[in-house]
Amino acid sequence: MDQQTWVAVASVISAGLTIGLGSIGSALGEGRALAQALSSIAQQPDEAATITRTLFVGMAMVESTAIYCFVVSMILIFANPFWNQMTSQ
Amino acid sequence: MDQQTWVAVASVISAGLTIGLGSIGSALGEGRALAQALSSIAQQPDEAATITRTLFVGMAMVESTAIYCFVVSMILIFANPFWNQMTSQ
Amino acid sequence: MDQQTWVAVASVISAGLTIGLGSIGSALGEGRALAQALSSIAQQPDEAATITRTLFVGMAMVESTAIYCFVVSMILIFANPFWNQMTSQ
Amino acid sequence: MDQQTWVAVASVISAGLTIGLGSIGSALGEGRALAQALSSIAQQPDEAATITRTLFVGMAMVESTAIYCFVVSMILIFANPFWNQMTSQ
Amino acid sequence: MDQQTWVAVASVISAGLTIGLGSIGSALGEGRALAQALSSIAQQPDEAATITRTLFVGMAMVESTAIYCFVVSMILIFANPFWNQMTSQ
Repeated sequence: MDQQTWVAVASVISAGLTIGLGSIGSALGEGRALAQALSSIAQQPDEAATITRTLFVGMAMVESTAIYCFVVSMILIFANPFWNQMTSQ
Repeated sequence: MDQQTWVAVASVISAGLTIGLGSIGSALGEGRALAQALSSIAQQPDEAATITRTLFVGMAMVESTAIYCFVVSMILIFANPFWNQMTSQ
Repeated sequence: MDQQTWVAVASVISAGLTIGLGSIGSALGEGRALAQALSSIAQQPDEAATITRTLFVGMAMVESTAIYCFVVSMILIFANPFWNQMTSQ
Repeated sequence: MDQQTWVAVASVISAGLTIGLGSIGSALGEGRALAQALSSIAQQPDEAATITRTLFVGMAMVESTAIYCFVVSMILIFANPFWNQMTSQ
Repeated sequence: MDQQTWVAVASVISAGLTIGLGSIGSALGEGRALAQALSSIAQQPDEAATITRTLFVGMAMVESTAIYCFVVSMILIFANPFWNQMTSQ
């Protein structure tokens, strides 16, 4: 197993684990907020517009942590500087 | 076991773990939101339309974290740049 | 496996785990705060403006911990001083 | 694998784990405090100013633990005395 | 791998884990205390001054456990007697 192969194997495994782990917290946090939003709409239907707006702006911020993981994952697969260095030799 | 085989083995294992881990949080979060939606509709039947609409838009955002994992998993299987590099040599 | 490869493999794996682990706490904390905010708006609709403002300033502080992880992750990939030292030899 | 490589590998892995682990507790603690603050504002709107001020001074103290981790992480990457000693030989 | 390298590797890993693990408990404890303080201010607004004073003196003591970890971490990096002994030989 030569140098290139080691870097490729590490990048593949790391890219998968990054988004795999990172999406767990994000999905659970969003699910919790969504559940509470539905309960709040049922409790106070007149405020449905305010609740829905706050929900989606807030979920966008929670989603951002999953997007960070996705970005790192894509970089490790398609713009990996270590791999480029290895193959350009 | 030569270089190509190592990259193939790592890609296969990583593709499986990525979507396997990533779907846990997404499924639990959506299940929780859906359970709360049904409870809220029972509590406030007049708001069923608003609750259902909010539920599905929100679930689409939770689902997105699982879709990120699916995309990474598909890339590792069908558009793996490390594998392409190895086999083009 | 020579020196460069070891540093590259360690950097790739570390960059992935850093943002993967770091985003879990951040997403769960933000999800909890968002859920409580929606509940509070339903309970006290007159204070929706104050609650929303406090929510987003607070979420920015929670988000900052995920951003620290993202910064370290990017540094390990693109501005890694150990890798630069190795390749400049 | 020579001396320099060992120190570089250890520094990279340690820098990532430090901020990755350190940000989990900080984000969860801040999320909990923020959730309670929003609940308290809904319960006692007249005290919103006092609650908000206490919240942000307190969150700055919780954030400080994440900043300690970030500082150690940066020192291990950019001002590592062991690495400097190794490369200056 | 000679003597110096072993000491350097152990110091780097230990310094990172020390502050990384040590800050989790501290941040969670402070977050919990802060949440309760905000709840208490909402419940008894007239005592806000007393509650706030007690909160910050108490948080300074909780913070001290994170500071101990930070100090040990800094000593391991910058004033490590084992490393000084090794390099002065």
